[in-house]
Amino acid sequence: MQHSEAVDTNSKIYKIRHSLAHVLAQAVVELRPEVKMAFGPPIDTGCYYDFKFEVPLTPADFAEIERRMRRIINEHQKFVGSSRLAKDAVDHLKSLGQAFKAEYCEELASRGEKEIGFYVNGPFEDMCAGPHVEHTGQIPADCFKIDSLAGAYWRGSEKNPQLTRIYVLAFENRKALDAHIERRTLALERDHRKLGKELELFMISEKVGPGLPLWMPNGTAIRDALETYAKEVEMRAGYVRVSTPHLAKADLYTTSGHLEMYKDSMYPPMELDGESKYYLKPMNCPHHHQIFGHRPRSYRELPLRLAEFATVYRYESSGTLSGLLRVRSICQNDAHIYCTVEQLKTELKATFDMCMEYYKLLRFEGVSVRYSTHDPEKSAKFADNPELWAFSEKIVKDLLDESGVKYYLGKGEAAFYGPKIDFQALSVAGREESISTTQLDFAQPIRFELEYIGEDGKSHRPYIVHRAPLGSHERFVGFLVEHFGGAFPTWMAPIQCVIIPVKPTVDAYAKEVEAQLRHDLIRVEIDLSDSSFNKKIRDAVTRKVPNIIILGEREMNERNVTLRRYCVKEQITLSYDQFMDRMKRLVSGRIMDNFADVVVP
Amino acid sequence: MQHSEAVDTNSKIYKIRHSLAHVLAQAVVELRPEVKMAFGPPIDTGCYYDFKFEVPLTPADFAEIERRMRRIINEHQKFVGSSRLAKDAVDHLKSLGQAFKAEYCEELASRGEKEIGFYVNGPFEDMCAGPHVEHTGQIPADCFKIDSLAGAYWRGSEKNPQLTRIYVLAFENRKALDAHIERRTLALERDHRKLGKELELFMISEKVGPGLPLWMPNGTAIRDALETYAKEVEMRAGYVRVSTPHLAKADLYTTSGHLEMYKDSMYPPMELDGESKYYLKPMNCPHHHQIFGHRPRSYRELPLRLAEFATVYRYESSGTLSGLLRVRSICQNDAHIYCTVEQLKTELKATFDMCMEYYKLLRFEGVSVRYSTHDPEKSAKFADNPELWAFSEKIVKDLLDESGVKYYLGKGEAAFYGPKIDFQALSVAGREESISTTQLDFAQPIRFELEYIGEDGKSHRPYIVHRAPLGSHERFVGFLVEHFGGAFPTWMAPIQCVIIPVKPTVDAYAKEVEAQLRHDLIRVEIDLSDSSFNKKIRDAVTRKVPNIIILGEREMNERNVTLRRYCVKEQITLSYDQFMDRMKRLVSGRIMDNFADVVVP
Repeated sequence: MQHSEAVDTNSKIYKIRHSLAHVLAQAVVELRPEVKMAFGPPIDTGCYYDFKFEVPLTPADFAEIERRMRRIINEHQKFVGSSRLAKDAVDHLKSLGQAFKAEYCEELASRGEKEIGFYVNGPFEDMCAGPHVEHTGQIPADCFKIDSLAGAYWRGSEKNPQLTRIYVLAFENRKALDAHIERRTLALERDHRKLGKELELFMISEKVGPGLPLWMPNGTAIRDALETYAKEVEMRAGYVRVSTPHLAKADLYTTSGHLEMYKDSMYPPMELDGESKYYLKPMNCPHHHQIFGHRPRSYRELPLRLAEFATVYRYESSGTLSGLLRVRSICQNDAHIYCTVEQLKTELKATFDMCMEYYKLLRFEGVSVRYSTHDPEKSAKFADNPELWAFSEKIVKDLLDESGVKYYLGKGEAAFYGPKIDFQALSVAGREESISTTQLDFAQPIRFELEYIGEDGKSHRPYIVHRAPLGSHERFVGFLVEHFGGAFPTWMAPIQCVIIPVKPTVDAYAKEVEAQLRHDLIRVEIDLSDSSFNKKIRDAVTRKVPNIIILGEREMNERNVTLRRYCVKEQITLSYDQFMDRMKRLVSGRIMDNFADVVVP
Repeated sequence: MQHSEAVDTNSKIYKIRHSLAHVLAQAVVELRPEVKMAFGPPIDTGCYYDFKFEVPLTPADFAEIERRMRRIINEHQKFVGSSRLAKDAVDHLKSLGQAFKAEYCEELASRGEKEIGFYVNGPFEDMCAGPHVEHTGQIPADCFKIDSLAGAYWRGSEKNPQLTRIYVLAFENRKALDAHIERRTLALERDHRKLGKELELFMISEKVGPGLPLWMPNGTAIRDALETYAKEVEMRAGYVRVSTPHLAKADLYTTSGHLEMYKDSMYPPMELDGESKYYLKPMNCPHHHQIFGHRPRSYRELPLRLAEFATVYRYESSGTLSGLLRVRSICQNDAHIYCTVEQLKTELKATFDMCMEYYKLLRFEGVSVRYSTHDPEKSAKFADNPELWAFSEKIVKDLLDESGVKYYLGKGEAAFYGPKIDFQALSVAGREESISTTQLDFAQPIRFELEYIGEDGKSHRPYIVHRAPLGSHERFVGFLVEHFGGAFPTWMAPIQCVIIPVKPTVDAYAKEVEAQLRHDLIRVEIDLSDSSFNKKIRDAVTRKVPNIIILGEREMNERNVTLRRYCVKEQITLSYDQFMDRMKRLVSGRIMDNFADVVVP
């Protein structure tokens, strides 16, 4: 996992990647002396460097830059570190015409830095704290490759000048570089944005807006299958369902604290004459609290578990939007559990276990667990209640420790109302995202003055567990597409079965089977195109349909069907009833028949 | 049905009700000489009259007004009609201080009315075209009753002064009056607002906003059951599902024509820096058109039926909001069928038949059918294409004529994009609303430039059928609550089964049965309260739970359950498996076991 584990800055590969960033910048400055340099750090696949160009760079320039980089490596230029007084450093950078660096250096000075580090190699100088290899000759010349260009903003803010980022891949040896490129090529075949288009799962419309995916029939089938399953799981776990509107008066978000803590992530208000401002909901919790709080509650009703698949809207900046993983419309597998302090840990554990059960069922490996706590030094971001933070964080930490799961700390990653357990996964494009979450909330019951009457006849404050084991449809389905490479098990597959008649004389029988399957609620298609039999099989495989029904004259005469599974060569002939029994078992048992090792019971 | 059928203005009861309105006004003016009179028409339960009072009237004044009305009736005052030249009439009304009447009279004059009718009875005079009874003595004095007060606006517009409306019930004889009052009292027991509260189906929150119901667990169970059923029906009918966001850029609604034709019913925009304005969607069609239009389509894909249960938002004025029947958040049973001209009538008929099938299943009688056409004289409200209007209206009319259903004409009630069939129902509060709709759309395919490649290899324009057989969850469930009086069949019931152990020794067995039922996805509750057995039965009946499981020691020892149905006295003992089989048959067969005459198969 590429999560926030500490990087070993003294490792050989770190120094190579770091030094290579300087070599890259040196080569770019040679080629384009007018260029302004921004930041250029090592990353875990090599390094990048941000520049402001007068004339845009294109991939056609890569070869020339790489040629110059190799020359610089061959020159065995020594890296020599030194330092300057902060004020001198600013003047020095300004004299070099490096405005971005000068600005950052001024900021360091104003924060009280006394001395600023610089490194020189050959004719090139860069503000830098090191460490580096001893000389450029220690960089293996055949183990790097300029990879790609990307847009970026100075200091990551859209309000600042736009820059061009040059990515370089760099590994310790050629084999590692080639292996990385091959792995990535294969992985990108699984990219949900690519498969999403090929399999017609979702689309983005210019007229609707960025970050607002429209789910096409194939994508909707997947999310509906997931939703149906989750509803069963939740019903068995004692949840009840609610359904709430997508907007509310400002008043609700003043009470909840969202307008104070979270406004930047919300859509702007709708302003109505003579009425309050209305906001799209960024979270479902305040709506659910209205339902809990609308009449007096008794301890006999607790834990009360209110669940809803509901779309929330968050105003993510357009630069961060990406396929289904970063969107503005987010349909959450949400629930809020109102409980007594005695029930709190049991309820939290049940939600944690539910996440784990889902991952196990889906064979979803490589999920890392983050224990997200508040940061007392950033008090504006968190509810002010040291005692309840200490109490709540202890409960969550104990739960994690007792579960035996490996987890890491995300300090300052808590919600404003309490600590969280976040489940992190990595997309094939290399971005880490939360896919599930379980949160303890001590603050909102206070803000909303939620109460229940205890067995003692007195009023008590409940605790709330917020949880979303399947996260949002957008992100979870996005990850599932990549996880399965688009080949979904029968129970989730957009098209569960394609019928291929081997010749036109069988068409009528094929239509009869299709009609029966549709009546039996199987998502079926029939291929009556003019294509050859082999082409039809290839098409079905390209579309990753888990069950292919082949119908020839023998099947017609015996009123049977011949089944070919997507992932295995097995081909068996069954009666219609046997086939439907099998389909029902696959669906109701949520069998992972997209894995070749799975035996259909 | 109380739809727009012609009223017989020459009938005896019409004249009585009309005359009674004058008697009411006369009595009110006697009591409150400063009052300003507005309109006072007969209605089908009596009459009403709107007034502007200086000091508010209260129900405490009813007895005195009725006393004076009876006196006026006893005086046998003769109704004498006359007319004045329009200009004179205005002056006359002004001299009487009747500003509202004078304003209306001026409007009539400006529209070219030459003469204005007046009626005098005793000392009272009113602008009126008649007809009336001969004298007040012909009004039966014991057949009317002042019913209630309501707020109203002059000419129905919120921009005008607010008035007080006095409703009077009036029938031909005392028996008819009493019968009406009794029928209404019983009906109001079924009012979905009353039952919605008692059965905890939905709530309105101050902090969320008016017209934005929050569905509580019991209400959500009903809409989910309906939704699950509709999805099965639609899957079997060849629909595929999509899922689209709740907002879109202004651009989408400029293309669709909503911003031009429908802006007043939309929420105001959200204005984002550097981005387009965003609007909440008032309808799903434009989003679905984006999905249809995102790539070239072939005739082989048609009819393409895109279905979605999706919430749209409409800004209804707060005065018209009422329970679930008039709301601002509307979750529609929506679909759009893209088809060729040859497929159009068949597809329309299938949607019409689907509505009828639902009504038959639900025993939903008393739905009237409205054929809604455009009005060429209100051209601004309708797409400008006389030829396609003629073509489309003929198809819809032919379909209705051939179906043999009784229908009436709603001129000017069409959508701006084409003619409709609306299915109208009457709430117990007496308001008629559309509960289902099927619409032919010839205009939006042109606006969105939708196309498909025909068998001839050329580009063609598709037609679209918009349809919502279950209308919206809000309105349809609202009507269903009233229709069933809150006693839902097992498949829709919020709580499908309550378990009542007859003594504490049976509690453990009862919990075991409860756990098994929950595992088998039955919405079950167990009554472990301290109440008596009879009280527990009464509670379950009050909550209209369709199946009551009674568990005593005999049941425990024999591992059976005893079942009592809500609507019949029948009580039978079954094994758990027999009971579950029965429940599964009730649910999957959508059996209407809330009607006593229904035999469970």
